[in-house]
Amino acid sequence: MNTQSKAINLADKLATFDDHWQPRTVATFNGHDIMVVKVKGEFVWHHHDDTDDLFLVLSGRIRIELRDRNIELGPGELFVVPRGVEHRPVAVEEAHVMLIEPTGTPNTGDADTAARRQVI
Amino acid sequence: MNTQSKAINLADKLATFDDHWQPRTVATFNGHDIMVVKVKGEFVWHHHDDTDDLFLVLSGRIRIELRDRNIELGPGELFVVPRGVEHRPVAVEEAHVMLIEPTGTPNTGDADTAARRQVI
Repeated sequence: MNTQSKAINLADKLATFDDHWQPRTVATFNGHDIMVVKVKGEFVWHHHDDTDDLFLVLSGRIRIELRDRNIELGPGELFVVPRGVEHRPVAVEEAHVMLIEPTGTPNTGDADTAARRQVI
Repeated sequence: MNTQSKAINLADKLATFDDHWQPRTVATFNGHDIMVVKVKGEFVWHHHDDTDDLFLVLSGRIRIELRDRNIELGPGELFVVPRGVEHRPVAVEEAHVMLIEPTGTPNTGDADTAARRQVI
């Protein structure tokens, strides 16, 4: 992938699309996809049996709802949802987020409903 | 580690130390350390045989020198140095960077000269 040979500007990548909850892969790292995504509204409750789930907010605010509490994240803040833990990301206003997951991880925790992998 | 149970503010973590080239682990993710580091000046040429090396600039600017070219990175820009590739990070002025590497990876590529692991 040619993105691997140069600097990757996350804001420039985010400027190339407008849809929500459709992550774009901007680089790969040790078998993982580094992704950016625009989010707004409520995602589905889900979990990943085999991977932790890293969220780093780039702009805006998100709330990661867990079954026992909520995690509020603003720009420059990150949270790792441990594997197996049910969670639901929510954004009242549009927010921009960097995600890291093993390549091929379904974003909904379910291959049937997951967004397709898009490399930009 | 209790940092796993709450939002992690990268700027707050960076404000807790002043030294350079001494990464602090702020979270763990799939066997990797998520680290923040302050850098200034020239690091050593090194490589990692067994891992890619992810740099995400949070503030300031860095240059990742490779043997055949340089990669310039500013805030919100990332670069993944592929495993085995020699590189030298350089920062003319202090810069703040997020790093991801498998837990235990020596930052110099050499256990004898590496910074010790510090979890904050």
